[in-house]
Amino acid sequence: MFQFWGSRTYSGAEGMENPGYCSGSFDGLHHPSDDDDDEMVDIAGATLDFSSTDDVPPLSSGGFEDYSTTTGSSSSSSRAAGMNGTGPSNLVDPLEDPLPGVGTYEDFNTIDWVREKSKDRDRHREITNKSRQSTVALLHSISDAFSGWLLMLLVGLMAGALAGGIDIAAHWLNDMKGGVCLIGFWFNHEHCCWTSNETTFQERDRCPQWQSWAELITGTSEGAFAYVVNYLMYIFWALLFAFLAVTLVRAFAPYACGSGIPEIKTILSGFIIRGYLGKWTLIIKTITLVLAVSSGLSLGKEGPLVHVACCCANILCHLFTKYRKNEAKRREVLSAAAAVGVSVAFGAPIGGVLFSLEEVSYYFPLKTLWRSFFAALVAAFTLRSINPFGNSRLVLFYVEFHAPWHLVELAPFILLGIFGGLWGALFIKANIAWCRKRKSTILGHYPVIEVLVVAALTAIIAYPNSYTRMSGAELISELFNDCSLLDSSQLCGYKQPTNTSETGAGNSLADRPAGEGLYTALWQLALALVFKMMITVITFGMKVPSGLFIPSMAVGAIAGRLLGVGMEQLAYYHHDWFIFKGWCSPGADCITPGLYAMVGAAACLGGVTRMTVSLVVIMFELTGGLEYIVPLMAATMTSKWVADAFGREGIYEAHIRLNGYPFLEAKEEFEYSSLAVDVMRPRRADPALAVLTQEGMTVGEVETLVESTHYSGFPVVVSQESQRLVGFVLRRDLLISIDNARKRQEGVVSASQVVFTEHAPTQPDDAPPPLRLRGIMDLSPFTVTDHTPMDITVDIFRKLGLRQCLVTHNGRLLGIITKKDILKHMAQIANRDPESILFN
Amino acid sequence: MFQFWGSRTYSGAEGMENPGYCSGSFDGLHHPSDDDDDEMVDIAGATLDFSSTDDVPPLSSGGFEDYSTTTGSSSSSSRAAGMNGTGPSNLVDPLEDPLPGVGTYEDFNTIDWVREKSKDRDRHREITNKSRQSTVALLHSISDAFSGWLLMLLVGLMAGALAGGIDIAAHWLNDMKGGVCLIGFWFNHEHCCWTSNETTFQERDRCPQWQSWAELITGTSEGAFAYVVNYLMYIFWALLFAFLAVTLVRAFAPYACGSGIPEIKTILSGFIIRGYLGKWTLIIKTITLVLAVSSGLSLGKEGPLVHVACCCANILCHLFTKYRKNEAKRREVLSAAAAVGVSVAFGAPIGGVLFSLEEVSYYFPLKTLWRSFFAALVAAFTLRSINPFGNSRLVLFYVEFHAPWHLVELAPFILLGIFGGLWGALFIKANIAWCRKRKSTILGHYPVIEVLVVAALTAIIAYPNSYTRMSGAELISELFNDCSLLDSSQLCGYKQPTNTSETGAGNSLADRPAGEGLYTALWQLALALVFKMMITVITFGMKVPSGLFIPSMAVGAIAGRLLGVGMEQLAYYHHDWFIFKGWCSPGADCITPGLYAMVGAAACLGGVTRMTVSLVVIMFELTGGLEYIVPLMAATMTSKWVADAFGREGIYEAHIRLNGYPFLEAKEEFEYSSLAVDVMRPRRADPALAVLTQEGMTVGEVETLVESTHYSGFPVVVSQESQRLVGFVLRRDLLISIDNARKRQEGVVSASQVVFTEHAPTQPDDAPPPLRLRGIMDLSPFTVTDHTPMDITVDIFRKLGLRQCLVTHNGRLLGIITKKDILKHMAQIANRDPESILFN
Repeated sequence: MFQFWGSRTYSGAEGMENPGYCSGSFDGLHHPSDDDDDEMVDIAGATLDFSSTDDVPPLSSGGFEDYSTTTGSSSSSSRAAGMNGTGPSNLVDPLEDPLPGVGTYEDFNTIDWVREKSKDRDRHREITNKSRQSTVALLHSISDAFSGWLLMLLVGLMAGALAGGIDIAAHWLNDMKGGVCLIGFWFNHEHCCWTSNETTFQERDRCPQWQSWAELITGTSEGAFAYVVNYLMYIFWALLFAFLAVTLVRAFAPYACGSGIPEIKTILSGFIIRGYLGKWTLIIKTITLVLAVSSGLSLGKEGPLVHVACCCANILCHLFTKYRKNEAKRREVLSAAAAVGVSVAFGAPIGGVLFSLEEVSYYFPLKTLWRSFFAALVAAFTLRSINPFGNSRLVLFYVEFHAPWHLVELAPFILLGIFGGLWGALFIKANIAWCRKRKSTILGHYPVIEVLVVAALTAIIAYPNSYTRMSGAELISELFNDCSLLDSSQLCGYKQPTNTSETGAGNSLADRPAGEGLYTALWQLALALVFKMMITVITFGMKVPSGLFIPSMAVGAIAGRLLGVGMEQLAYYHHDWFIFKGWCSPGADCITPGLYAMVGAAACLGGVTRMTVSLVVIMFELTGGLEYIVPLMAATMTSKWVADAFGREGIYEAHIRLNGYPFLEAKEEFEYSSLAVDVMRPRRADPALAVLTQEGMTVGEVETLVESTHYSGFPVVVSQESQRLVGFVLRRDLLISIDNARKRQEGVVSASQVVFTEHAPTQPDDAPPPLRLRGIMDLSPFTVTDHTPMDITVDIFRKLGLRQCLVTHNGRLLGIITKKDILKHMAQIANRDPESILFN
Repeated sequence: MFQFWGSRTYSGAEGMENPGYCSGSFDGLHHPSDDDDDEMVDIAGATLDFSSTDDVPPLSSGGFEDYSTTTGSSSSSSRAAGMNGTGPSNLVDPLEDPLPGVGTYEDFNTIDWVREKSKDRDRHREITNKSRQSTVALLHSISDAFSGWLLMLLVGLMAGALAGGIDIAAHWLNDMKGGVCLIGFWFNHEHCCWTSNETTFQERDRCPQWQSWAELITGTSEGAFAYVVNYLMYIFWALLFAFLAVTLVRAFAPYACGSGIPEIKTILSGFIIRGYLGKWTLIIKTITLVLAVSSGLSLGKEGPLVHVACCCANILCHLFTKYRKNEAKRREVLSAAAAVGVSVAFGAPIGGVLFSLEEVSYYFPLKTLWRSFFAALVAAFTLRSINPFGNSRLVLFYVEFHAPWHLVELAPFILLGIFGGLWGALFIKANIAWCRKRKSTILGHYPVIEVLVVAALTAIIAYPNSYTRMSGAELISELFNDCSLLDSSQLCGYKQPTNTSETGAGNSLADRPAGEGLYTALWQLALALVFKMMITVITFGMKVPSGLFIPSMAVGAIAGRLLGVGMEQLAYYHHDWFIFKGWCSPGADCITPGLYAMVGAAACLGGVTRMTVSLVVIMFELTGGLEYIVPLMAATMTSKWVADAFGREGIYEAHIRLNGYPFLEAKEEFEYSSLAVDVMRPRRADPALAVLTQEGMTVGEVETLVESTHYSGFPVVVSQESQRLVGFVLRRDLLISIDNARKRQEGVVSASQVVFTEHAPTQPDDAPPPLRLRGIMDLSPFTVTDHTPMDITVDIFRKLGLRQCLVTHNGRLLGIITKKDILKHMAQIANRDPESILFN
């Protein structure tokens, strides 16, 4: 039945085909159990059934009241009516009780922040006023005030627990590719060998309980055959996990693919994508994230954790009326959830809050800052108490460096910044081009095959190289690691000093010449770098949950480590060069390759995502010392500048644009000198703006007008001649109200007058009773004049979160500007296809 | 001559008497060398001398152009004309060249953020467009883009250097009160004894080179007489420093008093206080800050350092046209400077940035976040390289705790939070009451005597108690300190375990029973607590630079340490109680009193300032471990909730209100249900709104209208009958333009028509040529309808930074709302005197 309302441009099934999130086209994907899902707005039931408005008040007529009398106490009520159509108006509308559906949004539409925030203030005011009357109401008021904190606590606990579960499961499945634990298949490699007391110091990761597949099948772990068996098993598991992941996503929750951050950014800016943060998405994303990470694909779980945390928050919002019913309030919670996601991903609560503030959030008041911080802390400590890494550490990569850095080293750090910026810019261009290709060619029709092919390719190439075989997080951990003397890692394969007195006895960490092991490691790392750079481009955007943080950081960490070892060897062999003089004497520990890896990781991540403060703070939280913040900052700044020179969009913004979401970037200034009149509709050649008059139109005329157009709303003017603006009515509200009135209200026929004024007009006696709709009209629409520069208009849209704005000239209505109009205008100026903006 | 323009409510001399910053009345204080100072806007010369507009273009008339033709390329020019009166309009105005003074602000007025930001975008656009034409212009464009970073670097360097100087000087002067170094009077106590190699481990702070005044005068450091001599010298120095501080402030820079944070908040929200951030204020504040801190008064240097950093930023802004000429851009720099101030005060760059974001700033775009962080880091490292504390530490209070905390301890932590909240609320009420008294009674007329009396009182009471005799920062350091076995401090006066095996050998830090020394220390601390609590109330707001951070933290740290020691002893004697069972076995080190001191300090500072995230992050940066962030957060949250229950204003907001600054608090929601029509002027009983018509008025009529009213601006309407809004003209711009035209333009007499339209109206041939003023008219004034709820209107004012907003009903102009009207309305609802809002 609701298909009737679905006559606007993008809604329902049509909308499902267009968006192409995860950068693939929605070939035949159906909305998974739409009714069952936790929707962003729970309207389906309400609009399908109007029976909840049981008693329709009789059509009564209030006295004339001029604007000047609506002061003091009466202002409250008329205001409420004006804004929300809820309060009792002086002239009682047939819509005195708020109609279900009025004031809600359709899927793939933008919310009106001003209205939502105003609604919440009304609600808050009502509770505060009531709280003075009784103790129960006071308690209600207090519980309402603390419900936000309670919700934050729950979000933190749930997201922390889920992240812990994901970590443990991914660790286990990842080890499963290599072998199985004989004392219980549910143990991962490390855990399996903990229980063993036969492990020696040299072979910490070998124990009889843990058997590789070759041992299990062929009985031996040596030789070419065993290698081949292990290789094949590795590929088999990788393919199995990848297949499971993509199938689950396709079957149950298409929204679970990708990193989710572009969509969450758009949702936070005020867009509705129903089911995107629902329980199905949560369940499927959690499971498939584990599978995708374990499959060995070049992707991380950090970005998707943000999505998981947001799903938790959205589902928990349903427990609290305050958040369930208000789109703006809910977005405050989602902003905090984004912080929680990063907090659990890296163990960096402050960095998470800044990530949410800098990268994801749109409306981020200070209250949210404080609550986000709280939730991020709760989540971080929940995760720590689960202790998935088994080392009581909060952070993902715990790093401890021993040597300070020297000012001269800023040069290689800046070099890493340049590399990171170039790689970021290149990656974005290549990935977007690949995703566009996927969307437009036959490739996009076979997502499962695509995933399987990429997974197979990854597994085949990755297995022989130990640095690509290990998971991304392990690789980064190893690269960040500062070599101690006892380290058995290949990367620490320095030549042992034969004579301690030679290299300065006592300083066991002094620079040493590279040995055989290190050279091998460097070659493998170089190959891994090339492989990671290429495979990540085609991996990000596939129909599995995939984060970008870890692959980007891995690329940077490899490059950084290579440069770091290079510098170290240079310093060892040429410590008499003038650049090393004075701070790098022979036998001293002057260069820390691990620090270079870290700086490189920050630079690459910065180039891809264009994060700045949050990135530095996340990295700072990993090391815990302000000492290393300057190198990180230098590299991040350079990386951002270099990458911005090639294009100012980060990967998330690029994907938002690719998918045609209506997102007004808050970071970028509107650079052009257009005026409102250049952007508004109707254009000069177009027919005049479709307006309603405040009186004189019949129900039939209104219906004809609404049905003959596809606009989301209509301005109400005094009369067609004067064009003086009175208010604004949303299409959805108008249709619901008329439909309701026709059904419920006696005498409302097509010939009935539609009246938006406060007082009823005089009519002939035999005329049908008029239909009063002042209650659903927004009496305070936003207006700008035709001469308003677009930069100011865009600022207003961004800061106030508008859907549309009316344009006047000398007090007369001239046109309308919607968010979509602005985005189209911007696309046009930038020589892009304005039709790439899909939604309003 | 400029007195002519000074006919509005608050400006010039009148404004100087009203504000009462530093909470005292401005009895006969003159503006210190007004012309000499670095003004917020450099207009004095320009308005006094119009000769810079040399060539007045002839009065020409452009063709008629409807709104609909102002599209495409022409839009740029007409937009510039509309907004700034700068660009060439189609109808050439006599004001084609921007008149000096047009578009600037008077002292004690609010800026128009929208106009300033738009001006900057125009400038940026022009530079970008030009950069495509030549290499020189391209270089100019690049240097323009990087000037912000360069400025940040300079601000960081300068503020860091100044902070280092202040630290060193204050340390030296503070020690001067006790004695003098014989090998050079410019050495402080510690430095003096460094050079000595006769100091033993037990008497680290005694060396023959450093002599107390008694030793120097009487020759002995023992006995009652020596004590009296030292006591008297202490009082003498305290009085001398206090006298110098208050005299310098009064004589050279009255703006240098107080913490400066309330004024900086107001300035950042868009208010003009000329000279507040000038070079005189900087010099005098730096000097008197050292004197005031050294005088032993209960005040800190952390808040004033924010003011000092902002002065640096404002002065350095003069080096860059981009920032010198734009009030909005300059405020971005000032926001970053506030972060720098806190960064150097505590050695906490991230905390500083969050402090600026949370507490001080009004408009804080993400670009500013990143730059603030950069500047804060530069400043922190500059300070460290100066190394004023002599220990290579970045932070003010370096803390390292050994024992983790237990969940049970959250109860005392929350208790500390309650104490902090109560103390914060009480302090604000008492301090504001005292400041109000100072303003309204004879007390305020003798600021020098007041300072001397308080300084004498402080010195007399403080000297006998060693905890009040030491400086606030030293006291806090000692209280935060975790006792080691070898600590000789009285606070660590535990009974030494006689038999190590009794208390668990090996654990040298185990809980011990309190000894004689500790009991003495506790008594002294309790007395110090009472004294600090009382003296701080009357100290904050005196006419010397005075920060609140250190005194508030000291109060909390004392309370925390007392509670901590109490808990420790409880745990020692009753470790079999069920609350200690399981985690506090005998001989273990379970309670860390230093942590309690730290939590108490955070709670009290939170109660007074209502900081949240920034406070926790600053404290986190002091300890450097996420471990202790949970206690800090629990205490801060409790403290804020408790304090908010007594009044939602922090001390800075309370002082802003006390001084009547026009500050719209961004954190608080507007809670009432008024409509725009309730707030706007004119009221129903008032005469109609003074408007200009777009044509038909003569110069004489306009002048009469302007002079008979005191409004800052006038709406321009189509005609008196239709009242349809065309634009808005500022009084200042109007007067400057008419005056200029009368002088420069031939034929402009009182009978000349004033024309705001695009095309000249037809006139009789013998009429004098019209005066065209479209160029100074704002063609895009902000409007709301009369039905707009005030919460939305306030939101618009805050987010867009408006000065005024016009109110319309059905397209007709009805009235005007200014920031002052809103603040008055809010004061009225809250049952406060609406006339307490002094400025517009």
